[in-house]
Amino acid sequence: MKLWQKDIASLQEVETFTVGKDREMDLLLAPYDVLGNIAHAEMLATIGLLTVQEKDILVKELRSIYPSTQNNSFVIQDGVEDIHSQIEFLLTQKLGEVGKKIHAARSRNDQVLVDLKLFLRSEIETLVNTIIPFFELLQQQSETFKSDLLPGYTHLQLAMPSSFGLWFGAYAEGLVDDVITLQSAYKIVNKNPLGSAAGYGSSFPINRSLTAQLLGFENLNYNVVYAQMGRGKAERITAQALANVADTLARLSMDMCLYLNQNFDFVSFPAELTTGSSIMPHKKNPDVFELIRSHCNRIKALPNEITMMTTNLPSGYHRDLQLLKEHLFPAFKTLKDCIAMATLMLSNITVKQNIVADAKYQYIFSVEEVNKLVLQGVPFRDAYKQIGRGIEAGKFEYSSAVNHTHEGSIGNLCTKEIKAMMDTTLSTFGFEKVHEAIKKLVNY
Amino acid sequence: MKLWQKDIASLQEVETFTVGKDREMDLLLAPYDVLGNIAHAEMLATIGLLTVQEKDILVKELRSIYPSTQNNSFVIQDGVEDIHSQIEFLLTQKLGEVGKKIHAARSRNDQVLVDLKLFLRSEIETLVNTIIPFFELLQQQSETFKSDLLPGYTHLQLAMPSSFGLWFGAYAEGLVDDVITLQSAYKIVNKNPLGSAAGYGSSFPINRSLTAQLLGFENLNYNVVYAQMGRGKAERITAQALANVADTLARLSMDMCLYLNQNFDFVSFPAELTTGSSIMPHKKNPDVFELIRSHCNRIKALPNEITMMTTNLPSGYHRDLQLLKEHLFPAFKTLKDCIAMATLMLSNITVKQNIVADAKYQYIFSVEEVNKLVLQGVPFRDAYKQIGRGIEAGKFEYSSAVNHTHEGSIGNLCTKEIKAMMDTTLSTFGFEKVHEAIKKLVNY
Amino acid sequence: MKLWQKDIASLQEVETFTVGKDREMDLLLAPYDVLGNIAHAEMLATIGLLTVQEKDILVKELRSIYPSTQNNSFVIQDGVEDIHSQIEFLLTQKLGEVGKKIHAARSRNDQVLVDLKLFLRSEIETLVNTIIPFFELLQQQSETFKSDLLPGYTHLQLAMPSSFGLWFGAYAEGLVDDVITLQSAYKIVNKNPLGSAAGYGSSFPINRSLTAQLLGFENLNYNVVYAQMGRGKAERITAQALANVADTLARLSMDMCLYLNQNFDFVSFPAELTTGSSIMPHKKNPDVFELIRSHCNRIKALPNEITMMTTNLPSGYHRDLQLLKEHLFPAFKTLKDCIAMATLMLSNITVKQNIVADAKYQYIFSVEEVNKLVLQGVPFRDAYKQIGRGIEAGKFEYSSAVNHTHEGSIGNLCTKEIKAMMDTTLSTFGFEKVHEAIKKLVNY
Amino acid sequence: MKLWQKDIASLQEVETFTVGKDREMDLLLAPYDVLGNIAHAEMLATIGLLTVQEKDILVKELRSIYPSTQNNSFVIQDGVEDIHSQIEFLLTQKLGEVGKKIHAARSRNDQVLVDLKLFLRSEIETLVNTIIPFFELLQQQSETFKSDLLPGYTHLQLAMPSSFGLWFGAYAEGLVDDVITLQSAYKIVNKNPLGSAAGYGSSFPINRSLTAQLLGFENLNYNVVYAQMGRGKAERITAQALANVADTLARLSMDMCLYLNQNFDFVSFPAELTTGSSIMPHKKNPDVFELIRSHCNRIKALPNEITMMTTNLPSGYHRDLQLLKEHLFPAFKTLKDCIAMATLMLSNITVKQNIVADAKYQYIFSVEEVNKLVLQGVPFRDAYKQIGRGIEAGKFEYSSAVNHTHEGSIGNLCTKEIKAMMDTTLSTFGFEKVHEAIKKLVNY
Repeated sequence: MKLWQKDIASLQEVETFTVGKDREMDLLLAPYDVLGNIAHAEMLATIGLLTVQEKDILVKELRSIYPSTQNNSFVIQDGVEDIHSQIEFLLTQKLGEVGKKIHAARSRNDQVLVDLKLFLRSEIETLVNTIIPFFELLQQQSETFKSDLLPGYTHLQLAMPSSFGLWFGAYAEGLVDDVITLQSAYKIVNKNPLGSAAGYGSSFPINRSLTAQLLGFENLNYNVVYAQMGRGKAERITAQALANVADTLARLSMDMCLYLNQNFDFVSFPAELTTGSSIMPHKKNPDVFELIRSHCNRIKALPNEITMMTTNLPSGYHRDLQLLKEHLFPAFKTLKDCIAMATLMLSNITVKQNIVADAKYQYIFSVEEVNKLVLQGVPFRDAYKQIGRGIEAGKFEYSSAVNHTHEGSIGNLCTKEIKAMMDTTLSTFGFEKVHEAIKKLVNY
Repeated sequence: MKLWQKDIASLQEVETFTVGKDREMDLLLAPYDVLGNIAHAEMLATIGLLTVQEKDILVKELRSIYPSTQNNSFVIQDGVEDIHSQIEFLLTQKLGEVGKKIHAARSRNDQVLVDLKLFLRSEIETLVNTIIPFFELLQQQSETFKSDLLPGYTHLQLAMPSSFGLWFGAYAEGLVDDVITLQSAYKIVNKNPLGSAAGYGSSFPINRSLTAQLLGFENLNYNVVYAQMGRGKAERITAQALANVADTLARLSMDMCLYLNQNFDFVSFPAELTTGSSIMPHKKNPDVFELIRSHCNRIKALPNEITMMTTNLPSGYHRDLQLLKEHLFPAFKTLKDCIAMATLMLSNITVKQNIVADAKYQYIFSVEEVNKLVLQGVPFRDAYKQIGRGIEAGKFEYSSAVNHTHEGSIGNLCTKEIKAMMDTTLSTFGFEKVHEAIKKLVNY
Repeated sequence: MKLWQKDIASLQEVETFTVGKDREMDLLLAPYDVLGNIAHAEMLATIGLLTVQEKDILVKELRSIYPSTQNNSFVIQDGVEDIHSQIEFLLTQKLGEVGKKIHAARSRNDQVLVDLKLFLRSEIETLVNTIIPFFELLQQQSETFKSDLLPGYTHLQLAMPSSFGLWFGAYAEGLVDDVITLQSAYKIVNKNPLGSAAGYGSSFPINRSLTAQLLGFENLNYNVVYAQMGRGKAERITAQALANVADTLARLSMDMCLYLNQNFDFVSFPAELTTGSSIMPHKKNPDVFELIRSHCNRIKALPNEITMMTTNLPSGYHRDLQLLKEHLFPAFKTLKDCIAMATLMLSNITVKQNIVADAKYQYIFSVEEVNKLVLQGVPFRDAYKQIGRGIEAGKFEYSSAVNHTHEGSIGNLCTKEIKAMMDTTLSTFGFEKVHEAIKKLVNY
Repeated sequence: MKLWQKDIASLQEVETFTVGKDREMDLLLAPYDVLGNIAHAEMLATIGLLTVQEKDILVKELRSIYPSTQNNSFVIQDGVEDIHSQIEFLLTQKLGEVGKKIHAARSRNDQVLVDLKLFLRSEIETLVNTIIPFFELLQQQSETFKSDLLPGYTHLQLAMPSSFGLWFGAYAEGLVDDVITLQSAYKIVNKNPLGSAAGYGSSFPINRSLTAQLLGFENLNYNVVYAQMGRGKAERITAQALANVADTLARLSMDMCLYLNQNFDFVSFPAELTTGSSIMPHKKNPDVFELIRSHCNRIKALPNEITMMTTNLPSGYHRDLQLLKEHLFPAFKTLKDCIAMATLMLSNITVKQNIVADAKYQYIFSVEEVNKLVLQGVPFRDAYKQIGRGIEAGKFEYSSAVNHTHEGSIGNLCTKEIKAMMDTTLSTFGFEKVHEAIKKLVNY
């Protein structure tokens, strides 16, 4: 049952090839297709393309379908091409002629556009809600381990004292900037493409502002040609933001793999969270971090893939766009899983005590000693020479106490200030307004 | 004269290799290095590492250097490794011992970080200021050509009526979303990394909030480890935003190349703006659009390149980061040139009259005719069949007048609403506050 | 049942995360794991780590398992981590202690390495065997349509006469170069990594040349550290070759979408192979070509993804490598499906007759007319001016007969010479030698 | 002086934008343009488009120009658009009318194609000649340090004994596979596109086999449409091979940065080759390796960039292709510089003695001890338990002597066999044949 089919049936292999994994991907769009249908029906009733009675029947039926799309019980039947056809089929099967009327003044092109925007909007929110507790854990561990020093490296060479307070706090602050990019992606997907039809609008006197309001969109994709162009673009910009979060996780994982290495030996984890070998008792393979790193590095390649697939396509819909779903949709779950696993790991981390007490790390304190002299009034270049001579003579004396006080330093982590930046960004998403709109759409 | 050099001179070829193009790239950082120096000097005087008199001498000299960094007369002398060394060299040469004092409580690592942030902040602003008139031109042309219909394609197949009003307006609206991503990049680069020293802070009681305020930063990169991690990340997120603008331009150029093609023949340009051949009078090679497309497609690959170069580097500075400048810095100029050339071209475009009057485009009106029947009360499926039968029988009658009225359609372009979205985004950058800070820094 | 597990069970969620899709992917490796086991057992018997009797029992059992890996009936049981464990489990379950002995002198690291090499070797062969008939079809269509002219474009502007003979032949010849890159990938994967153990070899006096010979490898990955480094590299180089084939298909599809567009209207296909609309009779959506293009553009991004995932990993195994399977393995099937669909489409193409007879294409013959004069002895610049003046005066006279005779031109397609280049490349793969080795391994 | 210009001069800014860096890039093509001109002239004389006398004059002049293209004294004059115009200008200026005649039966499109093929062919050869001594050094150091053990890591965890013999040898063997991909790129660029004119051939009875032979090409790009399609493709496939070499260098550099890190401390270099600090005597920043890594990671992103820039361009020339030169051309020099620097560094490496004697590495010998028991007849699982119990009881006894004898192991590096594989690959390039052809072309 393909709605566009002609009398002559397409060859089976063409159908298999063209449908591909689309039915599987479309299941993720099911709740959003129902929402889009409800908003569209409501709007049609206001312009006389549905009577109020017809609209009520349709909306009631759509609302009764909605829960099944939320609990994985919704199915796209064999022979039904996509989610849009399946919903229309269900309506027609149950309601007869009325079911067909809902397709007035729209096209599958804007249906999938609105489904995608609603899906991306929801997935970004869920991702942000996964990031928040991870951010909080990082901040908490930053405070817990603020007195635990470790060597800081530049060029991967021993350089200066650092601390686990700084290390955890750095990744927390990194998430603040990542969330800023998620927020701009959110803004861009939170615009209504419904009513753009096949990408050129229609002669029906539809009310796109109304559907935007009903669906909780902050704005419209006004221009219908641009609304269509948004396909591929919304995916790319969202993928860029995912890549930013992924990069933070991948780098954190690289650090963890290095710190778990026996030559560094800065941290450890419970045996259950690493893999080992009974004849190599030192072995504590960081499989979880290696896989987070690998998943995240793959996600970092995703924006490029999407860009490649959409490059140099003239304006207007192309079927190429269908395949953008296949790697992007699972990326949300993967990234959330990675954050969950990183949360599990870092909740159970043990930080080695007194790392920098080892004499091999003594020279990370040499700059500290120079600075102390400077603070006592010795000119920098002289202080530098004095300490340098001491080192050359094998007479380097130092204290491993570190007294850094400025903003963002070992002794002044600015945990609250970083939290405030995160809160400021979070407050601009406006999730509540969306929740209210959706609740109203499916409930009242 | 390399400040870090030991007694034994590095081999010349090592130096040539390691310096690479850095001196050339660093010239672009010169004004920002001066600004960072002034702010640092002001701050040092507040914590007693410079006397007020020393600070005044230094700031005066730095302000006298500043104009040369603005008019391309500044040079990095032979044998001087980078911009930071050159500025310090100038100060020391002129002021003697006082010149050396300014390097207290910082490192070349945070110097280059702050230079980069200031540079990226300024370049994003300049880019936005190049986008605005282009956006305005697109909106203006959208209004000018709002009655000029052209065929709209889906699957690159004739589908529905579109208009040049829609076409121009679509790219204008696209820029609104692109600027949203520039704005998030701006937010991320508009944070102060100065004071992070080598990435681990220092024991000096520096006042990073003060330098942030002096340099007009909206916020701090608080955590010093994160401040260092921001290198590579600021570049990547900025490049993602550039890639978004570039994608809009590349796609516009692809459309133009297609529309200039003789089989389409929808637009033309003055001979001066295309290249041709005296024996092929139809030839009007769209070299400018082809080169915009190519430049922009290259910029679209830039975020991936930056990501590749920074992947799996553990936290802490690595010299790898030096090379990020080489493709990113010129990308700003390239993108601005592309926008300027697109502006020149589209200012001089001629749109062919009455394109859709050609009978070969008749069927793009078939959906219109169906919809008219529907609006007269005929059920959609019946209307569809009726028109379909007429077409099969060779009796398709249609009007090429298009009466679309909904938001963002041919008859209702929503130019003002799109402009309002752009203005809202522009208002959040806060360029003015930055200008005031910089003016104060170099002038008072 | 994870062979490496310690007494304390790993947490379930860690296991779910770390196993991921690996069991699904590993099914594709099953036949190769059996082959590797047989070769390993044979070798162990020659160095006394298995008795001949034990070896015979093991090989017999492995040969009885082999067919199930060929007909999709092989399964990896619940709780078994990967293909290597499953095979070992089957052997132990059936043969008891003997089953365990086969794991001597190897590691799962070199097991998966050899499985991957055998898998990639086989998939490249299958791909080549899919390309050959497609190449032959392109050559055949090139001959069939050698007299059908179409306009040739430069800058997407009308330029010179071309022909469908040239068009089909160009893509055939493109495949010759693509197959050269497949052949270098084949050479690189056709080397034996077995015996490298965990990437550092072992103290057992194993005979790696023997297993290489038994498995039909042309050579060894000698250095055991390099053998391990080959993971990721073999995948990347194979993906580069796939990307080259994909690029040829994607570009061909782009041409087809353009030629099917009504403004070009150069070709058509049976209704069953396109999708349309009963009220837009001109609509013949090239969904198949759009999806080939999209699939292939995604494959073109694959080498970059693999590169990203392996960048800056120090030497030695990392679990990151596991995930390389997930996008590469399906890419083979996708690419073969795309070739099959392109074959179906191009077998059924109809080329429009007398395209260039349309007056709008007249100027593509202007260079021809210049050249005719030159061949009659008129200096080029004079001939050029003469024809140019004629055109300006509206008196351009031309013949649409094209008489090109040089190698590779419209009148001299060199189909045989191109075929000879393909045959030369094909002859260097040496598939037969591999077939014989494998046959011997599973049969005698 | 642009050969294609019309009476109305193009606007200056259009010209600046469209010429871009092309004149700078084209200088690298100068010798190849001369060669292509000589071959073309020779051929024209055989088909009567030049008299033998005219040909002799032209060839003599071209041969006199050739040396200047080899010693950097050749210039493209102001106002001359590209290398092709400059050569034609020189000929015409010196020889008058005869100079103009050489442009018969060709186009700038096939001129640049042949220049590119000759350039890429030559650059690949030069690169191979840079790789050979580096390969030989790696093999030599592998033999020199074959008895120096170091820990081998899996998951970046201590695993098994390795050796510097293996480490150096692994990268040597890696280059063998890289050169296989260079060889396939060489095959693909070593085909003659000259005579394809604007991508559609011509009506002149040219002899393309003759120019192929004169220029030393192994074969022709027969099909003229494919010859044009080769632009972008030759660049991409060459870039893929460069990326493979780059990946080997980048990974080697990552290992070096890690081994130089003080927690590993496996190697050191003379002070002149690292950068340090007089107050941090342990500091030996591996700037050279960091920059090799960064340059090489950028080159690894190049194939993707080229792919992006050529994706979804319909067949036929597009001006987009011009920009492919800008990042590819310098990549050859960069890669050769990186190899030269790696050669310098590794020639001067000092390997730390007795690394594995440190007790912290004891467990890397545990598998060795298990294997010894197995070789004495103890079943593997029992031997494993026995050693495991000893370790748990704190009674692990081991010898750090390693007795690996199989192919490619610590005790049997197979240096000769790896060299033989390299020699086999090198022998298939056929550089000599090319040298002879070029020598004949410029000398006789």
